[in-house]
Amino acid sequence: MKKRILFVFIALAFVFQSLFAGGLREKSANDTGIVTGKGQAKYVFLFVADGMAASQFSAAEYYLASKDSITNYGITRLNFTQFPAAGISNTHDYGSLITDSASAGTAFASGKKTLSSMINVDPKDGKSPYKTIAEYAREAGMKIGIVSTVTLTHATPASFYGKTNNRNNTDGTPEVVGLAKQLVESGFDYYGGGWIVGNSANNDKYVEDAKQSGYTVTRTPAAFNGLTKTSGKVIALAERVQDSGAMHYEIDRKPTDLSIVDFTKKGIELLENPKGFFFMVESGKIDWAGHANDAGALIHDMLIFDKAIEEALAFQKRYPKETLIVVIGDHETGGMGVGWAGTAGIPAQPGVSANLGMGYSMYFEKISRQTRSYVAFDDEVINPYKARVGNVSQRKIEDLYADILQSFGIDLRPGSLNVSEFQKNQIEIAFKRSMEQPVTEPQEGWRVFHSSYEPLSVKLTQILNQTAGIGWTSYSHTATPVATFATGVHQEIFSGYYDNTQIFFKLASAMNIKVD
Amino acid sequence: MKKRILFVFIALAFVFQSLFAGGLREKSANDTGIVTGKGQAKYVFLFVADGMAASQFSAAEYYLASKDSITNYGITRLNFTQFPAAGISNTHDYGSLITDSASAGTAFASGKKTLSSMINVDPKDGKSPYKTIAEYAREAGMKIGIVSTVTLTHATPASFYGKTNNRNNTDGTPEVVGLAKQLVESGFDYYGGGWIVGNSANNDKYVEDAKQSGYTVTRTPAAFNGLTKTSGKVIALAERVQDSGAMHYEIDRKPTDLSIVDFTKKGIELLENPKGFFFMVESGKIDWAGHANDAGALIHDMLIFDKAIEEALAFQKRYPKETLIVVIGDHETGGMGVGWAGTAGIPAQPGVSANLGMGYSMYFEKISRQTRSYVAFDDEVINPYKARVGNVSQRKIEDLYADILQSFGIDLRPGSLNVSEFQKNQIEIAFKRSMEQPVTEPQEGWRVFHSSYEPLSVKLTQILNQTAGIGWTSYSHTATPVATFATGVHQEIFSGYYDNTQIFFKLASAMNIKVD
Repeated sequence: MKKRILFVFIALAFVFQSLFAGGLREKSANDTGIVTGKGQAKYVFLFVADGMAASQFSAAEYYLASKDSITNYGITRLNFTQFPAAGISNTHDYGSLITDSASAGTAFASGKKTLSSMINVDPKDGKSPYKTIAEYAREAGMKIGIVSTVTLTHATPASFYGKTNNRNNTDGTPEVVGLAKQLVESGFDYYGGGWIVGNSANNDKYVEDAKQSGYTVTRTPAAFNGLTKTSGKVIALAERVQDSGAMHYEIDRKPTDLSIVDFTKKGIELLENPKGFFFMVESGKIDWAGHANDAGALIHDMLIFDKAIEEALAFQKRYPKETLIVVIGDHETGGMGVGWAGTAGIPAQPGVSANLGMGYSMYFEKISRQTRSYVAFDDEVINPYKARVGNVSQRKIEDLYADILQSFGIDLRPGSLNVSEFQKNQIEIAFKRSMEQPVTEPQEGWRVFHSSYEPLSVKLTQILNQTAGIGWTSYSHTATPVATFATGVHQEIFSGYYDNTQIFFKLASAMNIKVD
Repeated sequence: MKKRILFVFIALAFVFQSLFAGGLREKSANDTGIVTGKGQAKYVFLFVADGMAASQFSAAEYYLASKDSITNYGITRLNFTQFPAAGISNTHDYGSLITDSASAGTAFASGKKTLSSMINVDPKDGKSPYKTIAEYAREAGMKIGIVSTVTLTHATPASFYGKTNNRNNTDGTPEVVGLAKQLVESGFDYYGGGWIVGNSANNDKYVEDAKQSGYTVTRTPAAFNGLTKTSGKVIALAERVQDSGAMHYEIDRKPTDLSIVDFTKKGIELLENPKGFFFMVESGKIDWAGHANDAGALIHDMLIFDKAIEEALAFQKRYPKETLIVVIGDHETGGMGVGWAGTAGIPAQPGVSANLGMGYSMYFEKISRQTRSYVAFDDEVINPYKARVGNVSQRKIEDLYADILQSFGIDLRPGSLNVSEFQKNQIEIAFKRSMEQPVTEPQEGWRVFHSSYEPLSVKLTQILNQTAGIGWTSYSHTATPVATFATGVHQEIFSGYYDNTQIFFKLASAMNIKVD
């Protein structure tokens, strides 16, 4: 009888231990993210949508719904927004409520705050290095992959291997090792996406350096497609780049260009191994489109980003108990509001006030009329026009009516005008400014009117956005918190609202990696 | 020895059952929110911040941090953002991507979509009623409490007891029972907050009706403070109201006015009983401040809302295993961006461009200079001035310089101007428009300039917001998803990104209530 009681006690002890461990895990997830739970995330994906908060991913979902039918007011879910766990992060850095991508990247890659422009260095001395989750994972024997649609030395990808007090120092100085050299010397297993740096000659140089360091470097789709597990360490670059060494916006991409989906799929193929991997995939131009207030370019990049996540989900089906997929934004860009105070772009008509606000209406189907990003419009319309009509005084906005209609669905022709008179006037001012024709500066100043963008392009996207029901408050990042989504082993620790540095600790704990 | 093995098996069975139940619960939380887990949420709080998404709660947190010190770039957390579980909801209704508070309230109160302006009726016939979570809870023997800072027949509170195809029909018609009568006949145990309806005479009438129906009605703080568990069913109204029968904005509230904290605390005291309660507390003017683009009024209402939640947290300490506290926004209002493209309000100086964008800087400490909401400025400054200087042509903005400085910290005096020339000009235009002096309509139209608000008031808050680093894209609701926070029993099912109708199912499952 005594023995029986003893065993009941042992049984209860098991039960209590199990309950207690669960309790501890939940509690600590809110503090440092350290879990004591069993199971290890061996295959870890971190998808980063640069510049994405709630307005950005929901805009993509509303766009999908509007394409189904303009009377379908439901939403069509992206893959990652259906993940079981969701969290919210604040993003302020060491010096400002509004972070840049360098200090944001440092926060989630190494768990520490730093100043804007700094990557993985202590803000107090600009030198003392922080160790990143990718470096910890590599020490633990995992393979490391880094994909970015912008340059591979840009702030977000560099946050996983780089240390610098100046993110722009990609090329280095006699005293300081640049990010490109740090990349080449990182020893990470797979890089894919845009060029190493934006400058073509320098990029060629780093490609040679990388080869010297033992990397297989591919620069064409054909070579890329030929990569196999026997290719060793790989750096796979886009053949064609659009702006600053970055891949094309999805809206501008040709079918023959490699996409973020291709780079993700290949990465999975090359990184798969019994010791696991840490694979970071960044969509960098969601941010750039936000800066430029171009919702169409942004939405298409959101959609292809989500397709890349589909590749990770397919992989997860093969290793459901060892895979963790986390999707984060690093900050919000543009102060994107999914609602607009102004008009729906209805020109004045008898009996219809052109000044009516949009109220609770949205017209996302208009975004589907956009066929080019603002950058492509610069490159394919404005610059060729300037070259063709060299004499400034001979340039007339009417010459671009057809291109504007074809690119943005904005019809400026008398009789078929589909924006308000005010909006048309704004476009005319922007045209003059772009063409360097005399035009009075708006009272609020050019900075607010077009920031550093080509005036005509930014004004066209802003006005298309407005008529769809989208407004912007800034050309910069904002301090709006961002969302995190997680699926897979230890997904639950990504719930709650926490500081962005906690992403690092949560990843480490899910991977059973002990960090300092 | 056989017995020993038997007990080990029993012990293991306990452990597995515990693990298995946890697994099932997590899975189903992603589908319909139905949980099979043990434990019942017996004391359920639903705090609703009308018009709150991420920008709204983070603005309150940044404001708190800026008050500590302008060099403290950390954030000071609100109570509810520290809850362990967080989720995200989309808010579109049956007819539009942008919901109103009636269809949003219906979604989370009854789990079904309807059209704007409709409350708990099928949008297809405008009649067939939906049963609300409060009605289910009442049937299960729980007590029901409803608090709102706006009128008790406003869309959000009415969503828990009302059925109507027109939210504005508070007073009813010969054919249709108005919301006020529905409230009086609801039999709910506790109502607190603003008046029943905005019209004073009608409000008096409904107070009498309520007394006839057996309610104890209090209309002064003294009577309110005298309420006890022996008072029976209670309707507790604010003595002083500010606009449309609503309580004052917190920034305008006198210490002698009851606050949302008082109504929450008293509600807990009166509702506590062994069979449990469902208690909805709405801060309704966070939304109104968003419509008016008044971040200062919004932030102070956010802070007092969070103080009301403190009361629920204190209660939770007494019943930690039976209490669930859920905090939601019903939709975003205003397209609030925590970042601004324009200037920091620095007037032109030699060597300093007035056109510089704010970039990554924010100046939330400026919000603390605000001492009145836009409504109080209308009531206490603009309207008395109009009465005092009846002759329109004699009204001069200089007369209001002192009030503007005292109310919003905006100094328009030459020599100490602390906004840009452009912003000053906007204020001057708004003054003329408010005073009905001749002024040219802005090219974008008055609707965009001030919507239906007093032009001078809305322009002053907008410009104060801009100089702090806050922009707005709309005077209406937007389609930006909202956040949910949860703490207590079954908190985990509120994680993830889901439709706002799921809030109803999640609450029901946490309460072990079987719904149709």
